Amino acid sequence: MHPVNQRSRQEKSWTTRRDAKAERLARAARVTKGRVIPTDNIVEALELLLIPGDRVVLEGNNQKQATFLSKALARVDPGKVNRLHMIMSSISRPEHLDIFEKGIAETIDFSYAGPQSLRVAQMLEDGKLKMGDIHTYLELYGRLFVDLIPSVALIAADKADGAGNLYTGPNTEETPVLVEATAFRDGIVIAQVNELVDELPRVDIPGSWIDFIVVADNPYQLEPLFTRDPRHITDIQILMAMMAIRGIYERHQVQSLNHGIGYNTAAIELLLPTYGESLGLRGKICKHWVLNPHPTLIPAIESGWVESVYCFGGEVGMEKYIAARPDVFFTGRDGSLRSNRAFSQVAGQYAVDLFIGSTLQMDRDGNSSTVTAGRLAGFGGAPNMGHDPRGRRHSSPAWLNMMTSDDPLARGRKLVVQMVETFQKANRPVFVESLDALHVGQEAGLATSPVMIYGEDVTHVVTEEGIAYLYRANSLEERRQAIAAIAGVTPIGLEHDSTRTEQLRRDGLIAFPEDLGIRRTDAKRSLLAAKSVEDLVDWSGGLYEPPARFRSW
Amino acid sequence: MHPVNQRSRQEKSWTTRRDAKAERLARAARVTKGRVIPTDNIVEALELLLIPGDRVVLEGNNQKQATFLSKALARVDPGKVNRLHMIMSSISRPEHLDIFEKGIAETIDFSYAGPQSLRVAQMLEDGKLKMGDIHTYLELYGRLFVDLIPSVALIAADKADGAGNLYTGPNTEETPVLVEATAFRDGIVIAQVNELVDELPRVDIPGSWIDFIVVADNPYQLEPLFTRDPRHITDIQILMAMMAIRGIYERHQVQSLNHGIGYNTAAIELLLPTYGESLGLRGKICKHWVLNPHPTLIPAIESGWVESVYCFGGEVGMEKYIAARPDVFFTGRDGSLRSNRAFSQVAGQYAVDLFIGSTLQMDRDGNSSTVTAGRLAGFGGAPNMGHDPRGRRHSSPAWLNMMTSDDPLARGRKLVVQMVETFQKANRPVFVESLDALHVGQEAGLATSPVMIYGEDVTHVVTEEGIAYLYRANSLEERRQAIAAIAGVTPIGLEHDSTRTEQLRRDGLIAFPEDLGIRRTDAKRSLLAAKSVEDLVDWSGGLYEPPARFRSW
Repeated sequence: MHPVNQRSRQEKSWTTRRDAKAERLARAARVTKGRVIPTDNIVEALELLLIPGDRVVLEGNNQKQATFLSKALARVDPGKVNRLHMIMSSISRPEHLDIFEKGIAETIDFSYAGPQSLRVAQMLEDGKLKMGDIHTYLELYGRLFVDLIPSVALIAADKADGAGNLYTGPNTEETPVLVEATAFRDGIVIAQVNELVDELPRVDIPGSWIDFIVVADNPYQLEPLFTRDPRHITDIQILMAMMAIRGIYERHQVQSLNHGIGYNTAAIELLLPTYGESLGLRGKICKHWVLNPHPTLIPAIESGWVESVYCFGGEVGMEKYIAARPDVFFTGRDGSLRSNRAFSQVAGQYAVDLFIGSTLQMDRDGNSSTVTAGRLAGFGGAPNMGHDPRGRRHSSPAWLNMMTSDDPLARGRKLVVQMVETFQKANRPVFVESLDALHVGQEAGLATSPVMIYGEDVTHVVTEEGIAYLYRANSLEERRQAIAAIAGVTPIGLEHDSTRTEQLRRDGLIAFPEDLGIRRTDAKRSLLAAKSVEDLVDWSGGLYEPPARFRSW
Repeated sequence: MHPVNQRSRQEKSWTTRRDAKAERLARAARVTKGRVIPTDNIVEALELLLIPGDRVVLEGNNQKQATFLSKALARVDPGKVNRLHMIMSSISRPEHLDIFEKGIAETIDFSYAGPQSLRVAQMLEDGKLKMGDIHTYLELYGRLFVDLIPSVALIAADKADGAGNLYTGPNTEETPVLVEATAFRDGIVIAQVNELVDELPRVDIPGSWIDFIVVADNPYQLEPLFTRDPRHITDIQILMAMMAIRGIYERHQVQSLNHGIGYNTAAIELLLPTYGESLGLRGKICKHWVLNPHPTLIPAIESGWVESVYCFGGEVGMEKYIAARPDVFFTGRDGSLRSNRAFSQVAGQYAVDLFIGSTLQMDRDGNSSTVTAGRLAGFGGAPNMGHDPRGRRHSSPAWLNMMTSDDPLARGRKLVVQMVETFQKANRPVFVESLDALHVGQEAGLATSPVMIYGEDVTHVVTEEGIAYLYRANSLEERRQAIAAIAGVTPIGLEHDSTRTEQLRRDGLIAFPEDLGIRRTDAKRSLLAAKSVEDLVDWSGGLYEPPARFRSW
């Protein structure tokens, strides 16, 4: 033995995690039956398997929810299980926060808190919640392998077999990455399933990664988050969609892209088979998609626009349609969708030409946020996809089209588009002097302000007034002018010196509908390939089965 | 049916990929035995399963190579199989290029071509190779789900069972992501395995994702790429490592990090238990690692510095050591390492404080490249980890420490460190007027220059002269001065106006060893915790089993 070694080394155990796990499993053996936790024993099992201070991943995607397990966790005795450090990509359900009120959990790391954003902010202010941090999905997944390695994962799947193999069906979402980080560091993985069967349609996660299966009292909750009823699409949204197609997608030859939730992008999807077709763009743009299976994409798929769709998760009602379109969607041998939120975020970050999103507020520099007074909504995946990934080294026509210099070291850019009407509901301006996010961030004691998309990452802003081509701005001053020129009668828009407008148009920094050959009067709902959910069902040949709340016929 | 729909819709098949796959499988049935391709039938099987123009992923990680399958592919009849579009994260073996010479393959998308970089450049120039593009690993994986969806995947695993389940052991690397992209789009997955067994130690990839298993004539090739013999570490590298520990890791409280291949970072690893210990830094810095299982990390692990290591791949000889240290490494139920290149790249991009790399050339602005005259080496993962990921929204002490403004919208930065001696071997300066990459990029007809790390992404440069704190530079001019001040007697260093040196030191833009409390004369090999591979074996208590070429005792 080397002398240095003798000085430095200590006799120590290198299997503390494995031993702790074995101990927990032994302790829980009296309420489990081998790999199966009987449904009624779940609370007791959690009390035996969890210890105070554990880092626990609770599966709450923005769609699929491990409802049975989250409810059970809220029922454990805080005298036995407490100070948990929760990791939840989405805080979606009341009991996700109840566990903090009850003292079962203490610290939270999360990505998105849409439905619970008001309560999250209040609880932080009241000191009932200790903030780890707010992340995009992808960075949260990354940390699961670095400094947020889970002790326990509580996840949801459709079916399990006796060996613990899991079938997630169309809703694989983020389950694999949560399980992988936990299972391979001697953590405990508990999966709630809707049923236990002899043979699975396919295996989505191998049984040797799973410790316990519990059959839930009710199927896991699943939200149709990405369904937009075409009836609510307005003429203004159609005008903006026409501008986006003509002034961005066509101009820059956008072939691969991500669309998020929203009527703006639903309008684009529904204009491709009509307006897009009239421009002769089929087969030239919008061929490869990274997005959830939006029902409003059905007409474009049926019209032959779409070569591939890779999905973050599933969408309620789209199961049969997807299964009948394997040339377009990723499906397994059983015929159903295979989604994967982790790889979709990778693809959405690095492998597509364009991200297009919307926001509630934008400042004069183009910084934007969906965080508004008193609401700490988090980020989800938008910042991950809505920035220029500077590690990218491959090129595409759209990416190269963003180059504004002939410097031999110049490179392209990802297109990051913000599409907003100048005013929100209740006549609240979108373009504002200062983002509410700054104040909310301060109140919540965050280390940095919760900005969704930074202005320097935005290449285009589309409003009902026109398009600002921010990637062409040579200075912050030019960027501001271009934004103000399309900001309408908002505080920022009113600052605009209208004598500069013509110069900005000539320099290609802004374009109005007429500059793009679009007549405002043409922007009518009659242009939509489907005007209602019923139309979407028709387009799908009856394969799309919308949830009851979207049915009116 | 809606009138628009009638106009736009066409009767068409939506199962062309699935049908094509079924046809291929049927055609190959005469040379296969169910799921198994007999070893001797592999060439004929490939001729029946592949069709001209197929997009084929061939597993060539930078460590594990699907050698049997790549050799077989090089033996198919180009009259039957040709114009293949190859996707290889690493071009590592002669036959990877032979298939282009023979007309079997035509187009290439890749990430890294280290050992074959000269030949790649020549073949491109001679028109024998059509370039798709050069990517980082992560963007290549992303495109597998978007516009580079494979028709066929040729991959390597350790063992398979009769149901096609795969065991990859420590060398999981990128196999799961290649298989997932192929299997769920009706592509064909062919796995070479070292043996077919009744029961697997664990399942790494489910059998329902795999079409064919073929037992290879020889175990797949595996390179000990990340083994550095401490005997070759020089005093200068030790000096630079001391500066990095004192002037960067300690100063900015770096807790999570990636180290790549190289003697510079090996020196850092070997100084932690000695120099780092003397500074009282154990438990304060370098706790969470994303890197391959470097043998030179053994002393730091044994001394209690390391809380976790997440691995891109395995390392030959480290298997037993890793299996005995599950508190530190990610391991499966069988006790062996679980690596994953895709998730490691995600973690290395988004979840760590610091990336540290080296380069062959750097220009005055801090842009760097390992592409040198006539060699098109590609990128691997360095640019993915060696940039500031602007989608990041969570903070850490080191990240926040990079903030240089009190603007409410200011954010932190990832630490991107370049560590280079001012001169390479053969007295070639590292700091140069212009990168060879610009010329190579032009010759090869690349759309952008193959720059590895862009100067604007670099926060620190370390040379034997000192550290340049580029993140503190307020202008390109300041960045240039700081670089020149530590560039020694290279062309760039000689441009430095030495009257500015004191000002740069006072402003904290540069630091010399003495500014960090380091005496150059202390930088001696005696500081290394291990001075030879034999020492590393000692540290490991005999668990580390270095390959023969590293044994000299």
